[in-house]
Amino acid sequence: MSYDFNISHIDANCQARAGELKTSRSIIQTPVFMPVGTNIGIKTLDTDDIKTLNPSIILSNTYHNFLRPGDQIVARRGGLHAFMGWEQSILTDSGGFQIFSLESLRKISDEGVEFRSHINGDKFFWTPEKVIEIQKNLGADIIMPLDICTSLPAEDHVLRDAAIKSLAWLDRSKTVLLPPTQSLHGIVQGGISAKLRKFSALETIQRDCSGYSIGGLSVGEESIAMLDMVDVCNEILPKDKPRYLMGVGTPLDLVENVYRGIDMFDCVMPTRNARNGTLFSTQGRIQIKKAVYKEQDDPIDPDCTCYTCQRYSAAYLHHLFKAGEYSAMRLNSIHNLHYYLTLMKRMRDAIVEGTFLQFYTSFKASIEST
Amino acid sequence: MSYDFNISHIDANCQARAGELKTSRSIIQTPVFMPVGTNIGIKTLDTDDIKTLNPSIILSNTYHNFLRPGDQIVARRGGLHAFMGWEQSILTDSGGFQIFSLESLRKISDEGVEFRSHINGDKFFWTPEKVIEIQKNLGADIIMPLDICTSLPAEDHVLRDAAIKSLAWLDRSKTVLLPPTQSLHGIVQGGISAKLRKFSALETIQRDCSGYSIGGLSVGEESIAMLDMVDVCNEILPKDKPRYLMGVGTPLDLVENVYRGIDMFDCVMPTRNARNGTLFSTQGRIQIKKAVYKEQDDPIDPDCTCYTCQRYSAAYLHHLFKAGEYSAMRLNSIHNLHYYLTLMKRMRDAIVEGTFLQFYTSFKASIEST
Repeated sequence: MSYDFNISHIDANCQARAGELKTSRSIIQTPVFMPVGTNIGIKTLDTDDIKTLNPSIILSNTYHNFLRPGDQIVARRGGLHAFMGWEQSILTDSGGFQIFSLESLRKISDEGVEFRSHINGDKFFWTPEKVIEIQKNLGADIIMPLDICTSLPAEDHVLRDAAIKSLAWLDRSKTVLLPPTQSLHGIVQGGISAKLRKFSALETIQRDCSGYSIGGLSVGEESIAMLDMVDVCNEILPKDKPRYLMGVGTPLDLVENVYRGIDMFDCVMPTRNARNGTLFSTQGRIQIKKAVYKEQDDPIDPDCTCYTCQRYSAAYLHHLFKAGEYSAMRLNSIHNLHYYLTLMKRMRDAIVEGTFLQFYTSFKASIEST
Repeated sequence: MSYDFNISHIDANCQARAGELKTSRSIIQTPVFMPVGTNIGIKTLDTDDIKTLNPSIILSNTYHNFLRPGDQIVARRGGLHAFMGWEQSILTDSGGFQIFSLESLRKISDEGVEFRSHINGDKFFWTPEKVIEIQKNLGADIIMPLDICTSLPAEDHVLRDAAIKSLAWLDRSKTVLLPPTQSLHGIVQGGISAKLRKFSALETIQRDCSGYSIGGLSVGEESIAMLDMVDVCNEILPKDKPRYLMGVGTPLDLVENVYRGIDMFDCVMPTRNARNGTLFSTQGRIQIKKAVYKEQDDPIDPDCTCYTCQRYSAAYLHHLFKAGEYSAMRLNSIHNLHYYLTLMKRMRDAIVEGTFLQFYTSFKASIEST
């Protein structure tokens, strides 16, 4: 079983495309940005805040949910959606990225991966089958197979081995029967080797998945290398399936990759930056702690229609942030997520109207001028 | 000039009274609890959250506002109300309590008090007149004179000296002309000496203030000593003026002191406890991190009508708190403040209906049984 995906518009001048992805819970207009809700809730926000922002899909992390509160406990609460009171779609990652970030704490074999909890050191062993079972318990609409996300730089044989194991694990993931409401992606690996990306993409699409994720990028490589790899993958990935670039990225990354035909994104950047006082605006990035905002009675972005900008001045946000108030982190997070979601909508509208190239050019110029 | 204050009901069996205090900004039904908004905002909440809770008055701290963002900056923003977007009443304390908590950092003379900022060590000298000027800049509806809040235990001559200085400072505070929208209280000191409380109360009421605050209690003394001092003060304080017991207290403290004729309270307890995971409920106090809540799908208090309990299960709050999410602190704060505000409303309703003694007795019994 799978979600429905239909592309309605493809830009005449580039690979950018607009579509709709339908799960049993929501219609997701693509290209889409999925806010990250690590601990079954977006950091600093409550579910009503998320509803106000109105993303059609959010992401949650299998690794974190497995450790705390535990997938069985979530299952007994009726799944992620019921537990947090969220009715639109959720995507869960496979936990691979988190496990492979704990370099000293994990051990990979053909069978699976052994790792220790970053919370209390407890030891666990995950097979690809188990990761699907965990995600069945969590109940997200779109799920990912366990894969090996190699840190860069890495030698070719390491990347090749990771890609091959990820394919074998995808095969094993597909043996687990899913309810009709859950759709499984395949994940393309291969680091920044065009050859291995091609190999991984060609092999992965043989597995006929609901959609295709591009993993293992945005892990420290140069931006140009990431874009090259996306181009390599997108030449191979089927045009009628959604393409999800995992863990990406800056606003410019989103624009560059929509241009290249990516449909789905997620990233902690808008919320993490918000907590650190970095705000996105149509005028560029803002450090809210800077003295220049101390007496600015206008909102941080006069053009912004978000909850925060509609209510509070830059001076007030500056004050709350300098005073270390958690409310500043929440108000900043709402603003930054609104910026990201609005950016996606602006891109989609431009694709639909046939003006994406114009948008792309002027966005890049505006970024370069700040 | 002064606010209006009218008492509509006095309980037949005790000193409890219900009234209305009218500032230029709101009608405050008394007895009232004022949530503490230290940094021009209640910790973890934004102004919309406060509006949802709908207290008719909140408190902010002169000391903190003076240091950050600075009273002049607040004045240029149009005052506390405009700065945070809050239209109902605000009370500011004098900063005395905060300064005298910084024992090693301050030096008292007849003229005023020298102290160092807890933020960066900067040295300041406050006279009583200056404290009123600061509060004029902040623009709260009800303001307090600089007083000396002595930590307990203290020898009689120390308490006497503090009370005498506080009276002299009140006289000097009253020489500063206030706008008609601001009302000044007198503050009764005297530690836990009945003799000095009587002296201070009798002298303070000679100064004919808008209302009377009882300071220097809830600083570590036994509960029974606090209640005795409140009794001593309330015998002397005029019946037709509001009585504000500063910095108090637990739910039981509120009930005991409403019984004794107190009209106004403030305390950080509901919000501080919330951030530490201690929640108030009609069933007693709850430690939300306890394992018993891990799978409780009901809200923490099934009878509670607050934003949090209407939306989230105890299990979800338990999870967010264990995961260290700031959203848990906010949801807990909303619940605890709602509990405090509801407790005040229940007391007021009972006074109006003539059933306060019944409420008082059954509340005490319920506290003792938990």
